[in-house]
Amino acid sequence: MCEANAYIEKNGIEDLYLESVDLLRPEEGGKIFLRNLFGEQKTFEGAIKEISLIKHKIILTRSSE
Amino acid sequence: MCEANAYIEKNGIEDLYLESVDLLRPEEGGKIFLRNLFGEQKTFEGAIKEISLIKHKIILTRSSE
Repeated sequence: MCEANAYIEKNGIEDLYLESVDLLRPEEGGKIFLRNLFGEQKTFEGAIKEISLIKHKIILTRSSE
Repeated sequence: MCEANAYIEKNGIEDLYLESVDLLRPEEGGKIFLRNLFGEQKTFEGAIKEISLIKHKIILTRSSE
């Protein structure tokens, strides 16, 4: 499958935020809506830092940092 | 493979911008850096509208619209 795991990066450390993400949608007000293969939905307050599809990684950063 | 094609959406029509994208990185000034599996690189002036990894689709929109 081609989903990716979303991590929050802080000070060079990546913490898992949501696994098996299918859908990402930036929303107004500096938020990112994410939904995974299991129907789990989360809204992250921050931004996309980088996405590597080959590595199956979505890196997010908090907007306040 | 798990790459995705990037499309520019305008008035409901999707035009292919870059195929087989591996890497996406939002940059300052409302730009998105993209690189594909073949090493081709492009910088798009606009934003990510939606990414569906299962559909292998990255939808971009121009910042001026």
